[in-house]
Amino acid sequence: MHTPVTQRQPLTVVKVGGKIVENDAALADLVKKFAALPGRKMLVHGGGRTATDIAARLGIETQMVAGRRVTDAEMLRVVTMVYAGLVNKNVVAQLEAAGTTALGLTGADMDVVRAHKRTGTAVDYGFVGDVDAVDGHRLSGLIETGVVPVMAPLTHDGHGTMLNTNADTMASEVAKALAAVGYDVKLVFCFEFAGVLADPADERSVIPTIDHKSFEQLRADGTVSGGMLPKLENCLGAIDAGVAEVVITRADLIGLPGGTSIRKNADEIGQN
Amino acid sequence: MHTPVTQRQPLTVVKVGGKIVENDAALADLVKKFAALPGRKMLVHGGGRTATDIAARLGIETQMVAGRRVTDAEMLRVVTMVYAGLVNKNVVAQLEAAGTTALGLTGADMDVVRAHKRTGTAVDYGFVGDVDAVDGHRLSGLIETGVVPVMAPLTHDGHGTMLNTNADTMASEVAKALAAVGYDVKLVFCFEFAGVLADPADERSVIPTIDHKSFEQLRADGTVSGGMLPKLENCLGAIDAGVAEVVITRADLIGLPGGTSIRKNADEIGQN
Repeated sequence: MHTPVTQRQPLTVVKVGGKIVENDAALADLVKKFAALPGRKMLVHGGGRTATDIAARLGIETQMVAGRRVTDAEMLRVVTMVYAGLVNKNVVAQLEAAGTTALGLTGADMDVVRAHKRTGTAVDYGFVGDVDAVDGHRLSGLIETGVVPVMAPLTHDGHGTMLNTNADTMASEVAKALAAVGYDVKLVFCFEFAGVLADPADERSVIPTIDHKSFEQLRADGTVSGGMLPKLENCLGAIDAGVAEVVITRADLIGLPGGTSIRKNADEIGQN
Repeated sequence: MHTPVTQRQPLTVVKVGGKIVENDAALADLVKKFAALPGRKMLVHGGGRTATDIAARLGIETQMVAGRRVTDAEMLRVVTMVYAGLVNKNVVAQLEAAGTTALGLTGADMDVVRAHKRTGTAVDYGFVGDVDAVDGHRLSGLIETGVVPVMAPLTHDGHGTMLNTNADTMASEVAKALAAVGYDVKLVFCFEFAGVLADPADERSVIPTIDHKSFEQLRADGTVSGGMLPKLENCLGAIDAGVAEVVITRADLIGLPGGTSIRKNADEIGQN
């Protein structure tokens, strides 16, 4: 499976949230646009509200701490059902109908994403996994045969236990691992806005490029703050680890120019 | 992916029911024995009671007609969650822990098993799929890189809809397709008994071999009857379609000699 990537082949990793893949119309639009993306690619999807709804119908209470789901043994069963079963297979079946050779995966499948249960935090998040290793060679082996991996936000600990893992983190870690095996990786995060906005009230105020230097300025002058700070730090971390470009855009704008492009050094490449 | 199988490599397809994979102790035993099977292999698992239990907890009534689940839109969501999510990923994670490179699949993944919704029957079974095509080349492509496919009893119609498909049928169809691409396929069905019994009251009365000729005798003299008839017809159909051997045994006896061996011509090969 250790297919050498002889040239730096371009590869796009798209991360899309639960909101999109759980909505029939939004999913249909995503599938159309994602299927039309040229070249090597893969999709990482989030979980979303279905898990909360199913849990409620099963009489299981959802506990969120700082925006993160607390995953006890019962909730782990729910997210495994919903993310890897319902959501993942629906996306795969739609992509297949659009002519894409899609393969649904969790981190447990072929051991592609190994994690460990998060411990030592003030809050016990339960069966939540922090990523230890992504097998870029296995993913590359699939991709080089024309397969488009579709990854649910679940990992495993290597000892038989599934773990709930943040989809943004999965996408970054997968992108880094694919960069490490030789791809020229573009990581696309689909957000609710068309990019990082200079003025949150004006969706036309998309900041076209961000690099380390401009990020520091945007943070210092308060243009980016709150939840956008860790997101951008995650993006810059991916860049530092070898991902060529991270784009923040809206799901319906996939494949179109625009969004915010995060790069190692925006000046060198120029604003596009 | 069209890996040519240059020699007739042996390959074992094991089908195991929902009862086994849903029971922690039975699953642990199966994983140990399946992981220890030498050579190329894959697993097809059934669904079982968890879907019925989860459906009941969700307030969805399970309707069975002639031992088959009626799958309306709500039930399709449940079986997709349970078979492809909960059950499949639990099996995959356990196999990975046992050192097997397992990949969970439904028929939708990489379009490996395409089906059509069953119509024109007296009973409307809903979203139940009859298999049209198995992509043996895709499966072979995975297997030849050391991957062990783990298949849930779900297919798709190629137009974005998942379909519920009988696991025995899936196993037979997959075995036939793998025989057609050049493997020397042994298909193992795990039943509740150690094989086909000459005397249902005596588990030591396993009939060691069955072929077309002896099947006709066993049917004529009433030794096999009822639900065992279609099962054996299914086995003989697989043999006629190129599967080298079908074995009926108990899950805990996998890898051991014994069980009932169904072959093209038992006399030629002899009793073993």
